[in-house]
Amino acid sequence: MPIITLTTDFGLHDAYVGAMKGVLLSVCPDLQIVDITHLLPPQDLQTAALLLPDVVPYYPAGSVHVVVVDPGVGSDRRGMVMRLDFADGPRWLVGPDNGVFTVVLDRAQSFDAVALTEPRFWRNPPSSTFHGRDIFAPVAAHLACGVELGAFGPSLADPLRLAFAMPQPTPTGGLTGNILTIDHFGNCVSNISVADLTAYGLLETLTVKIGTQQLQGVLRTYSEAASGAALALIGSSGYLEVAIRDGNAAQVLGISRGMPLTIER
Amino acid sequence: MPIITLTTDFGLHDAYVGAMKGVLLSVCPDLQIVDITHLLPPQDLQTAALLLPDVVPYYPAGSVHVVVVDPGVGSDRRGMVMRLDFADGPRWLVGPDNGVFTVVLDRAQSFDAVALTEPRFWRNPPSSTFHGRDIFAPVAAHLACGVELGAFGPSLADPLRLAFAMPQPTPTGGLTGNILTIDHFGNCVSNISVADLTAYGLLETLTVKIGTQQLQGVLRTYSEAASGAALALIGSSGYLEVAIRDGNAAQVLGISRGMPLTIER
Amino acid sequence: MPIITLTTDFGLHDAYVGAMKGVLLSVCPDLQIVDITHLLPPQDLQTAALLLPDVVPYYPAGSVHVVVVDPGVGSDRRGMVMRLDFADGPRWLVGPDNGVFTVVLDRAQSFDAVALTEPRFWRNPPSSTFHGRDIFAPVAAHLACGVELGAFGPSLADPLRLAFAMPQPTPTGGLTGNILTIDHFGNCVSNISVADLTAYGLLETLTVKIGTQQLQGVLRTYSEAASGAALALIGSSGYLEVAIRDGNAAQVLGISRGMPLTIER
Repeated sequence: MPIITLTTDFGLHDAYVGAMKGVLLSVCPDLQIVDITHLLPPQDLQTAALLLPDVVPYYPAGSVHVVVVDPGVGSDRRGMVMRLDFADGPRWLVGPDNGVFTVVLDRAQSFDAVALTEPRFWRNPPSSTFHGRDIFAPVAAHLACGVELGAFGPSLADPLRLAFAMPQPTPTGGLTGNILTIDHFGNCVSNISVADLTAYGLLETLTVKIGTQQLQGVLRTYSEAASGAALALIGSSGYLEVAIRDGNAAQVLGISRGMPLTIER
Repeated sequence: MPIITLTTDFGLHDAYVGAMKGVLLSVCPDLQIVDITHLLPPQDLQTAALLLPDVVPYYPAGSVHVVVVDPGVGSDRRGMVMRLDFADGPRWLVGPDNGVFTVVLDRAQSFDAVALTEPRFWRNPPSSTFHGRDIFAPVAAHLACGVELGAFGPSLADPLRLAFAMPQPTPTGGLTGNILTIDHFGNCVSNISVADLTAYGLLETLTVKIGTQQLQGVLRTYSEAASGAALALIGSSGYLEVAIRDGNAAQVLGISRGMPLTIER
Repeated sequence: MPIITLTTDFGLHDAYVGAMKGVLLSVCPDLQIVDITHLLPPQDLQTAALLLPDVVPYYPAGSVHVVVVDPGVGSDRRGMVMRLDFADGPRWLVGPDNGVFTVVLDRAQSFDAVALTEPRFWRNPPSSTFHGRDIFAPVAAHLACGVELGAFGPSLADPLRLAFAMPQPTPTGGLTGNILTIDHFGNCVSNISVADLTAYGLLETLTVKIGTQQLQGVLRTYSEAASGAALALIGSSGYLEVAIRDGNAAQVLGISRGMPLTIER
C-alpha cells in the first residue's frame, strides 16, 4: 500500500483531520495513512521544519509526506510537491511553499519540485481557508496512486527557505547555541549537533552552561545520571540536549524555547 | 478495504479506543480504521452532531462511521445502524439513537435505519457501560464485512433528533445567531450559513456584532486581514466565523460557545 | 494484514511515534498499525501494566503489541519478545523487561519469552536513548512478518514483575482496596474486582466508603443514578469504580490515584 503521512497544526478536536483523510481515501482507496502529529504549535513553521528530518528518512522510499502549517492559506503563497532524493531512494513532500520543508530539504542529495497549479487534481472549487482538504490531500493521493510530478504544475526551482540560527564559536574555543525544541518529557534539545561538537573538539570534555546550571560531560543514557539529576546527552536526533533523569528538565530548570546555552571546554 | 471511522468522547489516555479497534479487527480483519476524534467534550451530543456533516460526506460511498457519545448507555435508549443516501451514494452510521446524527441526517436525501436487537452480532454478554466495544464496534465490523442492514434488527423509522437554535431575522433586516463551536485555532464558528446570508441579501455588505466587537465585511481568507486583526469570514464548512489573523479569537475577544452575534447591513 | 499496536508515554507532539511507524513500515510494508495510547504518564510502569489487559485480549490471535515505557533505556535492563498463550490463541508482546507486562502476563495460561540480543533485527547502531525506534519497532515488524521467536535471542524465563497492592479483608468481613486509575471521564477504578466481591459475599448488599462519601449498593449502569449523583458500579473491565452520573467523580469528590476505599456489608 502507498504510504501517506500527515503533519499539521490542526489539533485533535475538530473535523479537519478527518475530512482530509476522507479526501485521501476517496482519491486513492488503499492507503497506509499515518498521523505524525496534529499538535504542532499553531502556525509555527520553525517547529514543523525541525520535526521533519526526524520523521521523513525513517519511511520507505516512495512515501508521501503531507505537511500543513499554513498561515498564508488563500494568499498568493504557492502550494507544491517536492521529490527529495536520499541515498536509499526518494521521498515526496506536499504542502505550502512557506519554508516548512527547509531542514529536511537540506538533508537531501537533490530535489525536484513543482508548483500546484492544475485544478484537475483538486476538489473544486477549493475553499480559500482549507487547502489541506481541497488541494494538498487530493494532490498527495493522486501522487501516491501514481500521477507523475510534472502533471501537477510547472517547475518550482526556488522553494522558500527559513533561516535558522546556527551555533557560533566563542573566543575561548567553545560554542554558543540555543534551545530549539522541548519534547513531551521536558527534554530540551539544542541546535548544537554531535558533528559540531566533534568539529570543535568539544565532545570528550565539555561543560554545558544554561541559565544557572553547569553540567559536566556528555552522558550516553538518561540512566547514567542519578534520579532527579540534570544531565547533558546526545539525543536520538544527534543533537545535544539537557534532561533530568526521571524528571522534566524544562519545568524543573525553567528552560524555554530559544534560551541560549554555552559549551565550554 | 472497507473504511470504518471512529468519533467518540473517550479521550486518548485509556484503553477504550484500543479495545474497540481490537474488536473491529477481530470481526473484520482487513479494515481501514480512521480516527476522526476522541476528544469530543464528554457526553456533548450537540458538538458531536455538528461535527459529522464536516466529516461523513468526504468519505467514499459505502464507508461506515461509528459515533459513540453515549450518556444513556445501558438505559433503554436504542442502538442503531442508519444508511444515509447522498447524491454520490450511501454512507453508514452506527451508534446510539440519542440525536447525535441529527445534522448529518438532515443533509441526506433519504435514509433507512434499524434498531440493534440481534445479539448474534455483539460480544456477549455485553457490558452495561461500554456498548462501544461490545455492540457498536462488532456491528460496524459485520456491516463493513457485508452483513445486510435488515439483519441487525427491526426498522427504526423515527430516529431521535436534537433541536438546534436557528438564526432569526431582526426587525432591521439583519440576522441574529450564536457561536456553535470554537475550533483548535480559536476560530469561532456561528450557526449562520452562507446560504442564510445570501437569502437575506446580507453577504455583500454587512457588519458583524459580537460582544463589543464590530467587524465590517466578510473576508475571503485569513491572510487578507492584518496580523492580529479580527475578521469575519465564511469558513470551510460554509458558516460565518469570527477569527483573528495569526491569533486565537476565542481567547483574545473573550468569545465562548453559545455567545450571540448579530449581522446587520 | 499483520496487526501491530503501539502503547507508549511518548506524547503526541514530537517525532518519536512517527519515526517508530516509519521503521515498522520499512521492515514489514503491509501492516495494520494501531495506536492504543501515547499519553501514558511519563515513565509510569504501573499505569501501563494496568492498561494492557483491557487491550491485548480484544485483538485477534497473532497480533503484536509494542509497549515502550522505558525509564531504563540504555542501561542493562533487557529488551524482550514474549508470546502469551490465551484460550483463543497467542498474542505477542515486545518491549523492555521492566515489569510493564506484569498484569497481562498474569492473565495468560502460559508464556514463552526471549531477550533481544540479535542486532541483525535492529537498526544499527541503535541510539542509546530511543530503543523504541531502533530495537523494539524493527523487532516487532520482523515478528509480524514471520520471524520465529527463537531468532531474536536466548530464552528469558524470569520476566520482571511489578508488585501490585491486592485488596485486603477487614475484621468485619469487608474489603479494603485503593483507586488504581482515573479515566478520561473522571471515573475512579479500584483494585477490587467483581470476583473479589463475589468471593467475600459482598456483591449484593454493600456500602462503599471513600473519603467522606458513602455509596449504597452497586448499580448496573450510570443511567440508573440521578444526574449529578455519585454511584458505585462494576466497570467494563470487571472492577468496582466510583463515578458521577453526567459528571467527573475525581474532580467533584476529590479522588486521586492511590486513595483507599472500603467495602462494607
